[in-house]
Amino acid sequence: MSTAPSRNGAGALVSQLALSGLRHVFANPGTTEMPLVEALDNEPAVSATLGLQENVCTAAADGYWRISGEPAGVLLHLGPGLTNAAANLHNARRARSGAVVIIGDHPDRHLASDSPLQTPLETLASATSDWWARASDPDAVPALGGAAFNSAAAGRISTLIVPADAQVAACEVPLRQGQLALERPYRSPASALDALRAAKRPCLIVGGRALTQSGLLAAEQIAAAHGATLYCETFFAVMERGFGRPAPRRLPYFPEDALKVLGEHDLVVLAGALEPVAFFAYPGMPSRLLSNRSVLQILAGPEDAIDDILKDAAQASAPSSTFDPMPTIGASWEGSLKASTLCAAVAAALPEDSILVDEGITTSLPFYDLSVGARPFRHLTLTGGAIGWGPGAALGASIASPNQTVINVQADGAGLYLPQALWSQARASAHVITVLCSNRTYRILGAELARAGVSVPGPKASAMCDLAGIEWTSIARGFGVPAVRVETGEALAAEMARAIAADGPSFIEAVLP
Amino acid sequence: MSTAPSRNGAGALVSQLALSGLRHVFANPGTTEMPLVEALDNEPAVSATLGLQENVCTAAADGYWRISGEPAGVLLHLGPGLTNAAANLHNARRARSGAVVIIGDHPDRHLASDSPLQTPLETLASATSDWWARASDPDAVPALGGAAFNSAAAGRISTLIVPADAQVAACEVPLRQGQLALERPYRSPASALDALRAAKRPCLIVGGRALTQSGLLAAEQIAAAHGATLYCETFFAVMERGFGRPAPRRLPYFPEDALKVLGEHDLVVLAGALEPVAFFAYPGMPSRLLSNRSVLQILAGPEDAIDDILKDAAQASAPSSTFDPMPTIGASWEGSLKASTLCAAVAAALPEDSILVDEGITTSLPFYDLSVGARPFRHLTLTGGAIGWGPGAALGASIASPNQTVINVQADGAGLYLPQALWSQARASAHVITVLCSNRTYRILGAELARAGVSVPGPKASAMCDLAGIEWTSIARGFGVPAVRVETGEALAAEMARAIAADGPSFIEAVLP
Repeated sequence: MSTAPSRNGAGALVSQLALSGLRHVFANPGTTEMPLVEALDNEPAVSATLGLQENVCTAAADGYWRISGEPAGVLLHLGPGLTNAAANLHNARRARSGAVVIIGDHPDRHLASDSPLQTPLETLASATSDWWARASDPDAVPALGGAAFNSAAAGRISTLIVPADAQVAACEVPLRQGQLALERPYRSPASALDALRAAKRPCLIVGGRALTQSGLLAAEQIAAAHGATLYCETFFAVMERGFGRPAPRRLPYFPEDALKVLGEHDLVVLAGALEPVAFFAYPGMPSRLLSNRSVLQILAGPEDAIDDILKDAAQASAPSSTFDPMPTIGASWEGSLKASTLCAAVAAALPEDSILVDEGITTSLPFYDLSVGARPFRHLTLTGGAIGWGPGAALGASIASPNQTVINVQADGAGLYLPQALWSQARASAHVITVLCSNRTYRILGAELARAGVSVPGPKASAMCDLAGIEWTSIARGFGVPAVRVETGEALAAEMARAIAADGPSFIEAVLP
Repeated sequence: MSTAPSRNGAGALVSQLALSGLRHVFANPGTTEMPLVEALDNEPAVSATLGLQENVCTAAADGYWRISGEPAGVLLHLGPGLTNAAANLHNARRARSGAVVIIGDHPDRHLASDSPLQTPLETLASATSDWWARASDPDAVPALGGAAFNSAAAGRISTLIVPADAQVAACEVPLRQGQLALERPYRSPASALDALRAAKRPCLIVGGRALTQSGLLAAEQIAAAHGATLYCETFFAVMERGFGRPAPRRLPYFPEDALKVLGEHDLVVLAGALEPVAFFAYPGMPSRLLSNRSVLQILAGPEDAIDDILKDAAQASAPSSTFDPMPTIGASWEGSLKASTLCAAVAAALPEDSILVDEGITTSLPFYDLSVGARPFRHLTLTGGAIGWGPGAALGASIASPNQTVINVQADGAGLYLPQALWSQARASAHVITVLCSNRTYRILGAELARAGVSVPGPKASAMCDLAGIEWTSIARGFGVPAVRVETGEALAAEMARAIAADGPSFIEAVLP
């Protein structure tokens, strides 16, 4: 009869997670997580990165998942740690990224004292997680740790609260062996294909896990066979893009534009994408963007066995692929920087198999079209609209794939939420190149004011959008990342080439008018 | 018969808040708050400060309350804005600071579409607020806005969610006149005084709203008359301190020390303070710190009419005050900086009527005792333990009282959560002097590891505490604040004198071994 080795709850949790498959933790721990930190030193399979603010850690876990397809751990301190981390947990949920969130808490017996750091932690966990549990009994730790990992591996934010006393008490039960195989339902493509055959002006919207090279090639084949227009969702978690890969048209952000595009079609077929809805509601504009006249068909839902379904549907649609790669687009990036030249310069500079973390907001709008013929790369976008994600997501992507170049096209307003991520990039020697789109304003808010009929904002409204007075290169250097400032497309291209050839992180402030 | 002027819901809310007494808003708005931003321009009584991350705004509202005793507004964007802001709402709640939190939301009709930025906003509001409501009907806005202000004025975090459509729709009802007078219950001091007379080794613990000069003088008079030791709570919202003001002994942070101190007394009387509890639970250590042998008496609760109760109790205890001000302590600050010399130099430099925002964590521990004889100042501490508060709280304190010097003694680890606040300090030309305690580590976590028996942390645990590689002066300058670096007490004193004489913010990195 075997006996469990002697370990405490914290050691059991870290060992269980390692056994389940966890390889990396992004951490900002405090007093109630110290036994977990100690346990990390006893588990060689799990490495750890410190974030200076918790939202760095959760953005990094999101980036890590999108590149590796595997959940990272996130180690947080009590309720304030969880709320600090919540915006990027939100973005991760909207990307269907999984993560194992571990939170130390006060022992149950301490909760009656309403001590200064106490919050409604379970309520917060329920509002920020897909799955959560509290492990007050150390012997429950292996089962709950294994369940948290399996839930995270299915693409869910999975939060396990472990009180400090359960971390230090002995855990006498054995670990759970192995990882559950994820079951993805197959759905017959027959009815969607019938509808495609019958439709006059069909379209196919791809998203989620359909956006791999093979998924896109299959989708392109299906669309071509049925005369359907191929679209992708506006904000995708990760898409394999560039030369040799089909480039769906991107659904527009503003609802009036999306309504116009979608209104042209009598059939809308979804593959991995959700039904398109407006990001924000505007007066007189519907939230759901499908025209009343168009029929909706689901070829594959986000959690389905999408590879198999697309492959079978492509095979049934046309015996062989007819996809012609787009020629490389040689858009010019010369002269003073503007959004289109910045995007063209970045697209031209992308090395093969690079990763583009796109939180450029208004500045990176032209990038999608300008990068159709770029060298093959993976494109990550802000899925949940909670700004302050890019620098942390780039860190996590780089740690998931250290030999690839990561380029973070980063809006300045959004970047100012999370400059601390640069320090973790420097400490990890992550090969992340930040192209900071410096327009010194929340430009999207100016656009929204104009949409609301405020063409000349008053002084207070103007001040709410104005970011003047930031010296980005000084901030980046302060966090340990070498930084330069460029004002032309040529200079941006030259600095990107230099940064791509260098080791470790680089920061390029691209000054826009 | 009067008719309400024509205004929309956003205009009605801002006008109602102005009429109720609101004078300042700390804002980080987004699309769903644009009508509110527009309305600010039509309301001259309310000024606004932009924060680059929401936790800046809530820390500022907390600092504003602690100095002015009046609630500021906080304008946030949806669920991610609220969670970004939540850590400093937590600190504010623990300080009993009031604030009016306004959150724009999607219209009710948009919620069914589960659009990308949707979160369980009401659940989050319930977990982060003392009071909350949703104003889906524009005609409900004046009543709910007035109620939110009155709740905030009573020292409560009061959150009003206003959907975007209710902001733009016409509001046809008149505003609510005037502000409710706050009713504070009086409680007879008789039984507490009887207990003090009967006790052998009594003590009196003051906290909360008792920590004004008059409250402290009365408490000192009561304590002296009964031979009671006078203590204050460990983390107080704001205390009037320095020469001419009684200096209670501060209850120790670690429970074993507090247990020892409190165990000496057979009677513990509370005035404005809560029953002392351990910040964290440790094995074998109780959460509630009163010895079983000591009797607890409440002279005044945190919400009581504490001024009147203390005055009457002092009058009943002794006919006249016998308080002798402590002589000024001339502790030396010469030579290489260490925690005690840093604190002595700051205490000596404090100008009369200055404000000291103390998030120095381990470094500022000696400050309390070393500043007993300083020029009169107000001392603010971190009440909720959620680090990343000081730079924002200093901003809010300065905006509440622009003619006073604000000095923020700031731990580096905690400061790295919220460096963005420096930019708002620069933009507001706030006279905030940051003394950054640069020890390049989360020292408190090293102490906690040692308490947990880990005297030599492993490489991962060490990395989780290590903040090497930050160039603070570069970061501060990047946010627009002039910055210097000092390594001796003499240089710190000289730079503080220069910064105090200058206008606007200054940043001094004080390098500790």
